Amino acid sequence: MTRMSTLAPDKILQLGSAFWASKTLLSAIELGLFTWLAGKGPQDIESIRQALGLHERSARDFLDALVALDMLQRTTDGRYTNTAETEIYLDRNKPSYVGGMLEMMNSRLYRFWGNLTEALTTGLPQNETRNGEAGLFEAVYAEPARLEMFLGAMTGLSLPTARAIGTAFPWREHRTFADIGCAQGGLTAEIARAHPHLTGYGFDLPAVRPVFESYVAQHELDRRLTFLAGDFFNDPLPSVEVLVMGHILHDWSLDEKKLLLRKAYEALSAGGALIVYDAMIDDERRTNAFGLLMSLNMLIETQAGFDYTGADCRAWMHEAGFREVQIKPLQGPYSMAVARK
Amino acid sequence: MTRMSTLAPDKILQLGSAFWASKTLLSAIELGLFTWLAGKGPQDIESIRQALGLHERSARDFLDALVALDMLQRTTDGRYTNTAETEIYLDRNKPSYVGGMLEMMNSRLYRFWGNLTEALTTGLPQNETRNGEAGLFEAVYAEPARLEMFLGAMTGLSLPTARAIGTAFPWREHRTFADIGCAQGGLTAEIARAHPHLTGYGFDLPAVRPVFESYVAQHELDRRLTFLAGDFFNDPLPSVEVLVMGHILHDWSLDEKKLLLRKAYEALSAGGALIVYDAMIDDERRTNAFGLLMSLNMLIETQAGFDYTGADCRAWMHEAGFREVQIKPLQGPYSMAVARK
Repeated sequence: MTRMSTLAPDKILQLGSAFWASKTLLSAIELGLFTWLAGKGPQDIESIRQALGLHERSARDFLDALVALDMLQRTTDGRYTNTAETEIYLDRNKPSYVGGMLEMMNSRLYRFWGNLTEALTTGLPQNETRNGEAGLFEAVYAEPARLEMFLGAMTGLSLPTARAIGTAFPWREHRTFADIGCAQGGLTAEIARAHPHLTGYGFDLPAVRPVFESYVAQHELDRRLTFLAGDFFNDPLPSVEVLVMGHILHDWSLDEKKLLLRKAYEALSAGGALIVYDAMIDDERRTNAFGLLMSLNMLIETQAGFDYTGADCRAWMHEAGFREVQIKPLQGPYSMAVARK
Repeated sequence: MTRMSTLAPDKILQLGSAFWASKTLLSAIELGLFTWLAGKGPQDIESIRQALGLHERSARDFLDALVALDMLQRTTDGRYTNTAETEIYLDRNKPSYVGGMLEMMNSRLYRFWGNLTEALTTGLPQNETRNGEAGLFEAVYAEPARLEMFLGAMTGLSLPTARAIGTAFPWREHRTFADIGCAQGGLTAEIARAHPHLTGYGFDLPAVRPVFESYVAQHELDRRLTFLAGDFFNDPLPSVEVLVMGHILHDWSLDEKKLLLRKAYEALSAGGALIVYDAMIDDERRTNAFGLLMSLNMLIETQAGFDYTGADCRAWMHEAGFREVQIKPLQGPYSMAVARK
């Protein structure tokens, strides 16, 4: 008992029940709580309840749980407001919104992760492709509503990282860039806004064109950002000075990863650069839990995708012909590899 | 942009994706990983893979994710062992096992919480009772396998708290006690072992008798601990010096809570004590996130249950006739209210 009294099961029980807190935030986003509160002064429980359609039984516990989780603030007279973070990042009407990824987690991934044990024992994906019909991207890109959610999710996921890439890479040395698998165009817009001398391209499947064009027009960047329709396995990549691949390599098998790196090498001119970013796992595979879990998410979502360390990426890049590979931490769990041709 | 650069969305994204880490631990428990590793020296990935039936594609990411989450250790030569905590608390063959609750979270609650938004907007439970057949306890107690899992879960949840109650209450002043809603008998055994002068009773529905009797016999406490079959709404509570109600009050509506407190008052002799424990919410409802989320879990699981603060409990106890109510923190998110008649 001596040994036991110095150890406690708290960490285990907290981690095992962490899906409660996670799903509470996801439901709050689904219900539009943060968007509704944005820009308003403190709101009383009855107003929130009616605006969101919350049942009397649940409203107070729900809102106070979000207070305890630091996602809401409560005034001394019992009214609720967004925190500084949720006001900026969870208001759907702000360009800084990161909730797209969380909406997708709520409507798709939470459920699919319920089958994690099956994924671990079979090695098979557990998403829409589970019935064997189509791959993730075929399934997602075929249906406009799903595509829009997926692309919005990618933007939410990419923007904070795109901001970091905007300052961490020497963009002044280059004039053109293309984002391979550009989705809505969140990264291209962020980079173009930060560096007015650049001309950029968004490269993605044809279905993405209207979404990209509407996004960059909305950001008044349509004269400097152009959509290029293509399939990065079957078409050549655009010839520009800088290619970016974010959240791309981790979707694919080792052979496919290497193929994409070779194609990037071929497309770049001498002196050009390839930027790859992902939630790269630390080389020791001991600390970046999010990167390792993202790799399990690729197990849930794809046939053969997996995440990788900076050292893995460096080795594949050298094998593709690149010289001078640098790995740089960006923000949160994200790092980029910059390779020079 | 100034304001944005000082704030980051990391906390939001971490919380929203926290179900990944949570489900990874739950699947590891389901697969028996910690139990299999217990007592063994460091094991290589291939042995673990074969013992647990893990697919080649998933094994390394899964195990390294658990390392990054502090649930496994990895030696410098790449073999895996339990941490000090998982060795003690997640080995099914040790009496210190707390995984029962987590097994139930994995097999029932993870899925039910997927419908949290519906629970929040309708106020209705989202568990087996969703089809309207029966209440939680009817559903759970009717099926032996489900009952055993539920009772084991309660033991896992109660033991660390029971240990704290063993030292935080002046048991030397009393000779008899009963645990109302005793489940397997985890708390009664813990208290009886720590205080050899006590005689105890476990009070629960008749279906629980064999489970309780087998548990206390296994702990060689069957001469001091006796099962009393009863329904705490329809039968009188046992007349002993100390009554304990843990994880009971939060299952019920306000009227039912008050009824149970009145029945406890009636059953006790003058000078007797009632101990109520739960993951009591802090009086300000600002810090005990687990208590607030447990209340949302009662929304998912019950018709009208909810968790409550120490101040709530104190007021109800005074209303039932008790004098001298003390609220004491126990361990983790748990507190007890001790009321004297």
